[in-house]
Amino acid sequence: MTARPDPTGPRELRLDPDRAFPAEPGVRSIAREIHAATADLPIVAMHGHVEASLLRRDEPFDDPARLLVTPDHYLVRMLVSQAGGARAVPGVTGPHDLGVRSSDPAVSHETDPREIWRRFCAGWPLFRGTPTRFWLEHTLVSVLDSPLRPSAETADEIYDHLVERLAKPEMRPRALFERFGIEILSTTDPAHASLSEHKALAAEGWGERVVPTFRPDPLLHVDRPGWVEQVRLLGEAAGSPVDTYPQYLDALRTQRAAFVAAGARATDHGHLRADTTPLDDVTAGRIFDAALRRSATRAEAEAFSAHMLFQMAAMSCEDGLVMQLHPGVLRDHDRQVHDRLGPDVGYDIPTPTEYVHGLRPLLEAFGHHPRFRVVLFTVDETVFSRELAPLAGVYPAVRLGAPWWFLDSPDAMRRYREAVTETAGFYNTSGFVDDTRAYCSIPARHDLARRIDAGYLARLVAEGRLEQDEATETAVDLAYRLPRETYPAL
Amino acid sequence: MTARPDPTGPRELRLDPDRAFPAEPGVRSIAREIHAATADLPIVAMHGHVEASLLRRDEPFDDPARLLVTPDHYLVRMLVSQAGGARAVPGVTGPHDLGVRSSDPAVSHETDPREIWRRFCAGWPLFRGTPTRFWLEHTLVSVLDSPLRPSAETADEIYDHLVERLAKPEMRPRALFERFGIEILSTTDPAHASLSEHKALAAEGWGERVVPTFRPDPLLHVDRPGWVEQVRLLGEAAGSPVDTYPQYLDALRTQRAAFVAAGARATDHGHLRADTTPLDDVTAGRIFDAALRRSATRAEAEAFSAHMLFQMAAMSCEDGLVMQLHPGVLRDHDRQVHDRLGPDVGYDIPTPTEYVHGLRPLLEAFGHHPRFRVVLFTVDETVFSRELAPLAGVYPAVRLGAPWWFLDSPDAMRRYREAVTETAGFYNTSGFVDDTRAYCSIPARHDLARRIDAGYLARLVAEGRLEQDEATETAVDLAYRLPRETYPAL
Amino acid sequence: MTARPDPTGPRELRLDPDRAFPAEPGVRSIAREIHAATADLPIVAMHGHVEASLLRRDEPFDDPARLLVTPDHYLVRMLVSQAGGARAVPGVTGPHDLGVRSSDPAVSHETDPREIWRRFCAGWPLFRGTPTRFWLEHTLVSVLDSPLRPSAETADEIYDHLVERLAKPEMRPRALFERFGIEILSTTDPAHASLSEHKALAAEGWGERVVPTFRPDPLLHVDRPGWVEQVRLLGEAAGSPVDTYPQYLDALRTQRAAFVAAGARATDHGHLRADTTPLDDVTAGRIFDAALRRSATRAEAEAFSAHMLFQMAAMSCEDGLVMQLHPGVLRDHDRQVHDRLGPDVGYDIPTPTEYVHGLRPLLEAFGHHPRFRVVLFTVDETVFSRELAPLAGVYPAVRLGAPWWFLDSPDAMRRYREAVTETAGFYNTSGFVDDTRAYCSIPARHDLARRIDAGYLARLVAEGRLEQDEATETAVDLAYRLPRETYPAL
Repeated sequence: MTARPDPTGPRELRLDPDRAFPAEPGVRSIAREIHAATADLPIVAMHGHVEASLLRRDEPFDDPARLLVTPDHYLVRMLVSQAGGARAVPGVTGPHDLGVRSSDPAVSHETDPREIWRRFCAGWPLFRGTPTRFWLEHTLVSVLDSPLRPSAETADEIYDHLVERLAKPEMRPRALFERFGIEILSTTDPAHASLSEHKALAAEGWGERVVPTFRPDPLLHVDRPGWVEQVRLLGEAAGSPVDTYPQYLDALRTQRAAFVAAGARATDHGHLRADTTPLDDVTAGRIFDAALRRSATRAEAEAFSAHMLFQMAAMSCEDGLVMQLHPGVLRDHDRQVHDRLGPDVGYDIPTPTEYVHGLRPLLEAFGHHPRFRVVLFTVDETVFSRELAPLAGVYPAVRLGAPWWFLDSPDAMRRYREAVTETAGFYNTSGFVDDTRAYCSIPARHDLARRIDAGYLARLVAEGRLEQDEATETAVDLAYRLPRETYPAL
Repeated sequence: MTARPDPTGPRELRLDPDRAFPAEPGVRSIAREIHAATADLPIVAMHGHVEASLLRRDEPFDDPARLLVTPDHYLVRMLVSQAGGARAVPGVTGPHDLGVRSSDPAVSHETDPREIWRRFCAGWPLFRGTPTRFWLEHTLVSVLDSPLRPSAETADEIYDHLVERLAKPEMRPRALFERFGIEILSTTDPAHASLSEHKALAAEGWGERVVPTFRPDPLLHVDRPGWVEQVRLLGEAAGSPVDTYPQYLDALRTQRAAFVAAGARATDHGHLRADTTPLDDVTAGRIFDAALRRSATRAEAEAFSAHMLFQMAAMSCEDGLVMQLHPGVLRDHDRQVHDRLGPDVGYDIPTPTEYVHGLRPLLEAFGHHPRFRVVLFTVDETVFSRELAPLAGVYPAVRLGAPWWFLDSPDAMRRYREAVTETAGFYNTSGFVDDTRAYCSIPARHDLARRIDAGYLARLVAEGRLEQDEATETAVDLAYRLPRETYPAL
Repeated sequence: MTARPDPTGPRELRLDPDRAFPAEPGVRSIAREIHAATADLPIVAMHGHVEASLLRRDEPFDDPARLLVTPDHYLVRMLVSQAGGARAVPGVTGPHDLGVRSSDPAVSHETDPREIWRRFCAGWPLFRGTPTRFWLEHTLVSVLDSPLRPSAETADEIYDHLVERLAKPEMRPRALFERFGIEILSTTDPAHASLSEHKALAAEGWGERVVPTFRPDPLLHVDRPGWVEQVRLLGEAAGSPVDTYPQYLDALRTQRAAFVAAGARATDHGHLRADTTPLDDVTAGRIFDAALRRSATRAEAEAFSAHMLFQMAAMSCEDGLVMQLHPGVLRDHDRQVHDRLGPDVGYDIPTPTEYVHGLRPLLEAFGHHPRFRVVLFTVDETVFSRELAPLAGVYPAVRLGAPWWFLDSPDAMRRYREAVTETAGFYNTSGFVDDTRAYCSIPARHDLARRIDAGYLARLVAEGRLEQDEATETAVDLAYRLPRETYPAL
């Protein structure tokens, strides 16, 4: 190891220039050289949850709590997880105490952003060893210029600094977009979206830089509460009523075309299972009709979801939209929390996920189609070496997505490369795809991915398994060229 | 790496002062510093299989074989696994050759402790790379002062030394308790236990130091052979007959209260599945009645076990006993071995274990209860990152137990931290919980855990992911404060 | 790290003398010392797919494409996986473009070996980080004396060099056998094989060096298309017609005896599941009869396969053939590809595999039989620590096979040792067993395994968990003694 700098004082935050590199000095030195070739590459952010309106409006950010705490389910869940325990943050008993708004008017939520910020700062030690800590450190130090270690003592000082900072023009979304070096940013949009924000951005010359992604999940799960309403919205967006299964397919096709016209490159699908077994048209139509009457069974609903994944792939062969599949998460594990606070507050839990049999119908039909591409994600690490790398390593249509969600972290990203490369190589992976909700953490996430890949490649070089010129070229491919190539313009 | 000492002679055992630390000198040096802060902390042993009678009686230990070989299923299984092969230890064809007593009078077992000891010593090379080797080395060198490498040649010399050593007063259980620095030791006791040994210890002022744990497994599995007898014993212990399901619940409550009165802090549950689906009272009562008549079906028995886990959690909300759940082990894989030699002779095998759906009823009901805590263990490593860390990282009631049984080993403990920390952090884990049967190996196990945690934390520091002051504080928490806080006094 | 040599030019291939060793200099130096003790040991190749006829004929090898590209499904699948993408190798749209012959006469395949070779060379970057790259580098540099980095530019130069080289007498199969230091090589042969090649080799004094392996898979899966024909061939080979289930068992026994007489030491079984539940004779006979009439159901066929694994184990207790079990691969995931190109072209995908319940009947019956040994393989890494190490760590009959197929790679081999050693030790593993189709890569595979084991053992030494004399002895055991002992001569 190189000599470490003097320990920082307990009030300071610093960004170690060698952060996330392997500790062994020889490997670290190779990693540094490889990383130098990628550190300043543009950011290609082909999947995320930043809203187009943020860039369209280009207004100053809200207060620090609304920017960094309340909407980040990683933060919320960790602070909630300690409620009632010896390490509990005073005042935090549930997500509402961090500003998450309840749908139940009887449940109040904390509205004072300074108080929310104090709670987050008091809980800072809970994030030790987590990617949240890594991202926030990067965001505070290098985006927000606030190199103080959060704690109950420093909370107000940081808060005041951030409020002042967020008011500056260079902290507006578009200025940050430039400063972050983002070349292209994909948003995630419902199938019935008007895409008006995207169109407005395009009119301002931002059409190549902010593109939508077609996410029809609520339409493909006929047993979810709002499904009938979703179908109505789809018809409205597509410009003709949807009363039958053929009309439903047509409307989906129409909306996909509208997305393509607005610059979309991909669809995105979050299903509990990866099943893609198609139904015959009569059966699909029958289930659709039953669902409109709210009488489809759960088994029918599952079969229909699987069928629709197959249909989405078929449509991708026509229109060229890359299909992204994110299966295996049980949403809203605690249904009471969901009923009170809604989705995305930290109660989604991964489950064992089967891909080999599930994807077989889809891959037998389209796995060699020259226009089809599917990017597979997982939160079940066991499938990387067992299922996903072997599938991506043979089917031309398959690319292996970056490690996602709970796995978008230093050690999990390293394990991902170790698990998949030997079978799928580098070039059957998507390169880095972030999944960011927090706009300000986009650079931190790409920075981390580039560092982990540099460290992994450096180890291959140090172990005589790769030459350094090859490693450097590969690092550039993973950071930049592969994400560009995986999601081509249509 | 630091310069290594000259290789020991083939007859010596030595404890490397840097054992189990990462090899890279920079990381190792940080690990040493972190470890220095925990090495002398008291031992908090909140789960184990040492009998209270051992400390109550405080008599000299039996011979070396009965102390170290026969009761340790790790040792027995390894020596048996080579039977008949090229590396077989002469004379070992099954557990009975190592002193394990058969219930079948026709099967004799070895009764000469010196012969058993010789067999173990001859098999020493089989333990290379195992935690058994690590623990025994520690026990022989630092507890028993016998730094000779076991082998066929040294067996008698070691044996004679140990016999002499075990006769000394400083080797009695209570003297070792002090020397080991044990602050508190939990035993594991059947639900019908009279706890007389614990009460006797309390009368001698050891009540805070040796506490019972409520383990009702045989009562919750109505299809196990001895169940009816267990119910009878429960009624006897609780002081009123148990003929009905409500009486059964009452008796369990009564006994839990008796355990609480005797200082217990936890219950412990070993089930094949983690299912916690409750039944309605009528169904539960019906199955109970059928079981008393030995006519419950296997499906009913499984449903009843799941239901009773839910009931145990409900009772924990009342009385505050921490619930420990150890699912996923198929006991007695070879039923003939079980019929001849009984349980716990090495034939228990882990199986894939599902937690997300299984625990959902329990967590929806009690996951946010201010008085409820459940500590989840597993022997299926795949669930650490996929299921247990995400659950522990959001539900206030959940703590992730230390890696258990087959996973209580250097590399598995390191993998555990790598798999869970990024999602659950450190403070949703229990800190170290040993599962020791072998009294003399308690210090070795805590020593190893502290070293592995120091090494993991040192890596985070070396990779710029944590400051050293934070790492040191965390190490102390994992070794001492978290186990204390996880199992609070009632 | 030691100083690295100057980077090679982009046209050179080199074999790093420290390849695949851990990068940390202290550990690497120990690894080097350990490896020195195994580097020159003879090769014991107890499982593979080299044909006996290759050595019997001892003719010069075909052209480079037919030697190295077309028959290697690792290469074919990787090149195919990029078809149509930005990194696609021009001209490669499917396996037929790499010379794989279609059963459909309408589908032509590439027949020009130089063109196939060019395609492979153009795709060289795709193999970065894969074991294929490692093996080929070794083969090109040290077997074929061609130290040029493959690329579109160097393809012809390498091709011409290889053609010249392959024509030399020292490149004939038997000369290479000596040069590689192979002590014994097992082939894989159908149950109905005449073993004439093996007999001819024996007549030339090669009987101890090239031995057959009994692989009855097509006979044990009654629902596979060619099953009836296989039964006919079995009867023919055994010398008496097979019309009934008892005749079928007898014929299998007869052929096993013929294999034993020809020097066989093992059977080999590739099943989708590890189920070994036996049937009663009447049921087995009934399914057999139905299968002969092509009317067995899929469930019956699966039950029969499981039953026959049990029968094979029973026969192994009689004749001493070691049973090798390779479950968990879904063959021919894309059935259209299979229909066009046949099996073994890269479309086999691992699936989750259950061993604990599946093997219970077999292990309860034969797990302690003094003459029975079963070697368990997997392509599902999750079972190493959860199921296979615990089973191998107690049942005398069980040995844990080397990491197989997709897992026969540097990082996966390291993970294997890390996952299994702490529970099963070293001596319940088989030592290294390659699974080579490519004759010239046999030394590369053994070289890699010895390096990875040396690195793993060196880490144990560096972490104070093993003395170096023990590590060196263990390395020799893993490379040589254990494979010899696992598959004893009968």
